[in-house]
Amino acid sequence: MLDPVELRELIAPHRVDDGARFRLADHDPADTGRFTRESKGEARELLGRSVEWLAEVQQKLYAYNRWSLLLVLQGMDASGKDSAIQHVMSGVNPQGCEVHSFKAPSSQELDHDFLWRHACCIPPRGRIGIFNRSYYEEVLVVRVHPEILSSQRMPPELLGDDLWAARFEDISSYERYLDRNGIIVRKFFLHVSRERQRARFLKRFREPGKHWKLDIHDMQERKRWDEYQHAYEDAIRHTATAHAPWFVVPADFKWYARLIFAAAIVDAVQDLNISYPEMGGERRSELAEAREALLAED
Amino acid sequence: MLDPVELRELIAPHRVDDGARFRLADHDPADTGRFTRESKGEARELLGRSVEWLAEVQQKLYAYNRWSLLLVLQGMDASGKDSAIQHVMSGVNPQGCEVHSFKAPSSQELDHDFLWRHACCIPPRGRIGIFNRSYYEEVLVVRVHPEILSSQRMPPELLGDDLWAARFEDISSYERYLDRNGIIVRKFFLHVSRERQRARFLKRFREPGKHWKLDIHDMQERKRWDEYQHAYEDAIRHTATAHAPWFVVPADFKWYARLIFAAAIVDAVQDLNISYPEMGGERRSELAEAREALLAED
Repeated sequence: MLDPVELRELIAPHRVDDGARFRLADHDPADTGRFTRESKGEARELLGRSVEWLAEVQQKLYAYNRWSLLLVLQGMDASGKDSAIQHVMSGVNPQGCEVHSFKAPSSQELDHDFLWRHACCIPPRGRIGIFNRSYYEEVLVVRVHPEILSSQRMPPELLGDDLWAARFEDISSYERYLDRNGIIVRKFFLHVSRERQRARFLKRFREPGKHWKLDIHDMQERKRWDEYQHAYEDAIRHTATAHAPWFVVPADFKWYARLIFAAAIVDAVQDLNISYPEMGGERRSELAEAREALLAED
Repeated sequence: MLDPVELRELIAPHRVDDGARFRLADHDPADTGRFTRESKGEARELLGRSVEWLAEVQQKLYAYNRWSLLLVLQGMDASGKDSAIQHVMSGVNPQGCEVHSFKAPSSQELDHDFLWRHACCIPPRGRIGIFNRSYYEEVLVVRVHPEILSSQRMPPELLGDDLWAARFEDISSYERYLDRNGIIVRKFFLHVSRERQRARFLKRFREPGKHWKLDIHDMQERKRWDEYQHAYEDAIRHTATAHAPWFVVPADFKWYARLIFAAAIVDAVQDLNISYPEMGGERRSELAEAREALLAED
């Protein structure tokens, strides 16, 4: 069993429940909490136990079939989104877990409202859904490259100065709706430093097995670093709420980032106090009869 | 050409922009506005011109590919929803118009948040989408039969007293979002009287060609008339806004109901002032070249 108090203390410094006073500068991408390079092993051990617990509780979530969990992952290129998903969710039965990676929208998707392709992928009850990038790109990449708006075929009359404020409000309202309907929303910004991104890009050049991840587009976006950081800060400031908190996860050390990601998920699910659904009286007697019939078969 | 002022005057008494002071009792299902039985022909003629105009403007909507139109149709059984759609939209090219009839949700649909199956059907840009029944059933039939909530697999903790208020708020926020993103929302309550419903049900018994429409379930729901009327009144009161108005359409006389339905749609689209998209300079010269090449082919 995992100690809920220990987990909560671990994630507390990274949790943003109320965006009003949020400043990205207060968060160090190289933070490793109470762990040091020397006690990394201890962090790994705790991660291992969290991953095991998650695999187990996901079965209960599936059997209970009432709640679902939506995990939104955002972060600059090479911030470790893919590998965080891989390490934390690998123990989980894929039948109860679905990952959606949102790349540049298709022509069909552009013909729709900006939440459309994501709303269709909201996890059904009993399931864990992971958005690897999400509708937040609509206030991140689209904000850094407002020329994208014209490809979204929005009527020009609607592209006013209050566009981003309206999108923040719409996203927040939508997340409030999800929360009210049993979809637990947790959002993660994998906060990597510019230096560490550079090192990871260069590593991709060195390792043939990582060449497929190299994308000239990512290198170009790197030049817009400060604009992206500002867009992230503003997005978190306007959409961090108690019902859909952001976690600003220090991501320069992957072992720490994964631990915080896992711990925040465990914390959210532990809060639900799910157990396997109990058998009601009527169902119990029906099933007892069915069992007798099975036993009596010759 | 249709006179926009005439249309606006026609629909004004039935339009609810601000629900706060709305009372269903102020609306007579047998109202026929400035028309009488004797001037019915004049109303039919105006309907005919509206239908023609709609078929034409829908081409422009499609070519412009920026705005879309969502028409939500609600009403008691036999209030004339199906035939209103048939009469008003028949001239429209089906490629630019899609009708979604929402019946009792499937097991897969019940596993999702209540807006899910509707959100996936929001019309793409350039298209007219019609919801024959809609997410409003979630505050109508579900309210009259709260036992449905348990089949929706909502976590019991979330079924508080404020459930309906929360759903009204969520629906309103969602419609505000749609409006901000170029989806024009118009909602129609086909307001039929209890007596007229009875007459139409009896007519279905008499006409073999209408037997397929007879449903014992509809007769049972009729017994809950007052509860439904109250649920409709409350829903309209909480969700009628300037960006997503309700039209309380008197539906005892189908010829008048269809005219109001058509006129409200024409009014909404006329407001957009759409014309065929103009050809930009670059595209114009590219196409001029292509035309020359076509002409020069031997």
